[in-house]
Amino acid sequence: MSEFHLSERLAADTILVCDLSLSRVLLMNDARFPWLILVPRRAYASEVFDLSESDRGELMLEITRCSELLKTLSGAAKINVGALGNLVPQLHIHVVARSPSDIAWPGPVWGFGKSEPYAPPARDALAARIRTALIS
Amino acid sequence: MSEFHLSERLAADTILVCDLSLSRVLLMNDARFPWLILVPRRAYASEVFDLSESDRGELMLEITRCSELLKTLSGAAKINVGALGNLVPQLHIHVVARSPSDIAWPGPVWGFGKSEPYAPPARDALAARIRTALIS
Repeated sequence: MSEFHLSERLAADTILVCDLSLSRVLLMNDARFPWLILVPRRAYASEVFDLSESDRGELMLEITRCSELLKTLSGAAKINVGALGNLVPQLHIHVVARSPSDIAWPGPVWGFGKSEPYAPPARDALAARIRTALIS
Repeated sequence: MSEFHLSERLAADTILVCDLSLSRVLLMNDARFPWLILVPRRAYASEVFDLSESDRGELMLEITRCSELLKTLSGAAKINVGALGNLVPQLHIHVVARSPSDIAWPGPVWGFGKSEPYAPPARDALAARIRTALIS
């Protein structure tokens, strides 16, 4: 079985938060939306159904934890969850906090405008806050 | 606990396929993309994390079945799965077959252009084919 390597495109767009039991958790470097990406550490997976049943159960758990956390942290009106992968074949799941005041509302965030990188201190503080909440 | 009623907006945009153990399965009436919508029959749910742990497990199973089926039926390059709900608060999960030759590729289908209803015989034949595959 081949080893997991994070896709270069995902690595370039994000900051590492932490590894959960199945997924690597990344913070999208886009200050427009509180946005996490979960990447199951399974080199062979590009669709959810490529995962084993037990991995799919774990993935659902991790999506749930990240969604609840993002909602609590941001006070978002809605959480959007999406597994698209039209551009990046490595299986990854977006968990995005949405609000009627965000710039893309009510449309999807994917492909919307240009990302706005965080100022590095704010980015690192947010990633640390999420890391602490997820691994506690 | 209040009774489940399908949202009027979802009903207007779709054709009923069948009820699985948790979800009502709908076929989006849009011939541009093979597109199913799963609606967990839980009146209180607007986020995935509103479901019980066992319902979430069942939902993952039903998403997997619908994704595999849609991929087989359509020969799609990619399955997109999304739970957005910015416009329709009732929890519903999109399962969409995507291909590099489709009109929205590689962007998301949500909010893209105008839907193109199927001719009724083609629509009913497709819904019947999916129903047969899901309930067998």
